[in-house]
Amino acid sequence: MKKLINDANTVVQEMLEGMVAAHPHRLKLIQNTTVLVRADAPVKGKVGLVSGGGSGHEPSHAGYVGVGMLDAAVSGEVFTSPTPDQVFEAIKAVDSGSGVLLIIKNYTGDVMNFEMAAELAEAEGINVAKVIVNDDVAVENSTYTTGRRGIAGTVLVHKIAGAAAERGASLEEVEAIANKVINNVRSMGMALTPCTIPAVGKPGFSLGENEIEIGMGIHGEPGIEKTSIQTANSIAETLLTKVLDDLNIKQNDKVAILINGLGATPLMELYILNKKVASILDEQHVEIYDTFVGEFMTALEMAGCSISVLKLDQQLMELLDSHADTLAFKR
Amino acid sequence: MKKLINDANTVVQEMLEGMVAAHPHRLKLIQNTTVLVRADAPVKGKVGLVSGGGSGHEPSHAGYVGVGMLDAAVSGEVFTSPTPDQVFEAIKAVDSGSGVLLIIKNYTGDVMNFEMAAELAEAEGINVAKVIVNDDVAVENSTYTTGRRGIAGTVLVHKIAGAAAERGASLEEVEAIANKVINNVRSMGMALTPCTIPAVGKPGFSLGENEIEIGMGIHGEPGIEKTSIQTANSIAETLLTKVLDDLNIKQNDKVAILINGLGATPLMELYILNKKVASILDEQHVEIYDTFVGEFMTALEMAGCSISVLKLDQQLMELLDSHADTLAFKR
Repeated sequence: MKKLINDANTVVQEMLEGMVAAHPHRLKLIQNTTVLVRADAPVKGKVGLVSGGGSGHEPSHAGYVGVGMLDAAVSGEVFTSPTPDQVFEAIKAVDSGSGVLLIIKNYTGDVMNFEMAAELAEAEGINVAKVIVNDDVAVENSTYTTGRRGIAGTVLVHKIAGAAAERGASLEEVEAIANKVINNVRSMGMALTPCTIPAVGKPGFSLGENEIEIGMGIHGEPGIEKTSIQTANSIAETLLTKVLDDLNIKQNDKVAILINGLGATPLMELYILNKKVASILDEQHVEIYDTFVGEFMTALEMAGCSISVLKLDQQLMELLDSHADTLAFKR
Repeated sequence: MKKLINDANTVVQEMLEGMVAAHPHRLKLIQNTTVLVRADAPVKGKVGLVSGGGSGHEPSHAGYVGVGMLDAAVSGEVFTSPTPDQVFEAIKAVDSGSGVLLIIKNYTGDVMNFEMAAELAEAEGINVAKVIVNDDVAVENSTYTTGRRGIAGTVLVHKIAGAAAERGASLEEVEAIANKVINNVRSMGMALTPCTIPAVGKPGFSLGENEIEIGMGIHGEPGIEKTSIQTANSIAETLLTKVLDDLNIKQNDKVAILINGLGATPLMELYILNKKVASILDEQHVEIYDTFVGEFMTALEMAGCSISVLKLDQQLMELLDSHADTLAFKR
């Protein structure tokens, strides 16, 4: 295992300290926790947004902490849910009396621990709501999940719910907007290579010299099938078709597209994929309102990608466009 | 070779088309060229900034085309200089009568072809100035270079010269500012793994299971030494010390830091590096004015990093902070 680390057991803490050292005007690390909050948290009169999960998906989620998106990101160990007490610390740090929304990716451990934290917070009189993102259409149930997994579409939930909160929407309203995004966003991914959890020291699975996996999750959970390497066009078509079908996208619908790299895939390749995605949507007379290409939800140094589609209406377009100023997403 | 591509011979053109499909309000592709320009180019009354080089370093340079940075990026084939006629097309597309500055990374082919383009443009009455970025302190002369190589520090030249141009500075003034940045920025990198040029189909060099190369260039050119894998702290110290010494950084100096990933290195690792970089500078009583962490100048899917330091004065700080709105750099 060749990694730029010091000690496999301290990667998360060192990363968080490196983030605060780099961006002291944006981020605060709550002492003795793995919770990064907006430097101006809690923001008076604003619903607080908390997300998080296992580390290793950077820039998710700390990269989305800031104006117009999240108030706090909680980091578990690599690919491991944060503990309830850490999430509880995040909730306390961002509640300004207007309540807190938890945005949870659908993994069993995350859901359980965020829910326990919500109970702890409610016992202290904090209003907490939660939404569960399950955008991955590849598989029902998986290694760490009952139901569908939450993957890169989560970033669009952060963006749009964050915009609503920034505009002063109530907890109930922000929760409703977040659920509206969740109901309208679908994603699917694939992997070319595995990744290595530092503390494990060897790849979590293996793929042959010419083998890829369609539908693979962001922790290396099994997808739909292993197959031989295909063209970018063929992969774009496979992923996009399943996403569009599931969303029931029709002619003249407006969509936002998110082409996400899993860690080791060059931007060049993501843009090649996007060329095909755009051309398929054009053929189907679907209107692309906006496209985001880059690394939004990674799996350490896994090579691969995911494609997310968000079906838009006027309200979602406005919130998608409104100001956001975070490390990994600016508008 | 597992890559998300269709045809190794068309990767650059497909990438460029994918970029325009994703960002039609930002970028225009000049027909029958590999030149991407600002959607509003040429910008009246403003000096035009043109950069570029071989592809494979994305988001360099197209990711920096936009308000406050570049007016055009010219893409050669992967790791291959763009031809003079392509650069000439870029110059013509962005000149509004105020002249054009070429920002060239110091590789023999780039320098030669950009200079030939400048001559073609001057013959047509366009004022052209050029600056050559040679921030890499690792080695003097290398596979493709006489003198020092130009690497990630180039992005800070784009940013600061771009800010000056956006404010209405003359060609002579923008050239002087660019040279001031070049004189005050130094970088050094290292690699953990090689990368594969699509049309070649196999890695350009090899590193052993536990081997890294210090000082390696962004095309896999040789560095200072191959060594066994070290801690992130040790690597940070090696790279930073050489950079600081070369810049003659002293107590109370103000600097901007750019921690650059070469393609496959997780953000987690870059932030771990930054923790050490910040702590070394703190010990030396050097003031970190700002820090940028991410992928700015990549080498396809190479794993590794570079560290750049820019010594700042009041003028450079103001220009660094001024508004920029590009895909890969926003202020």
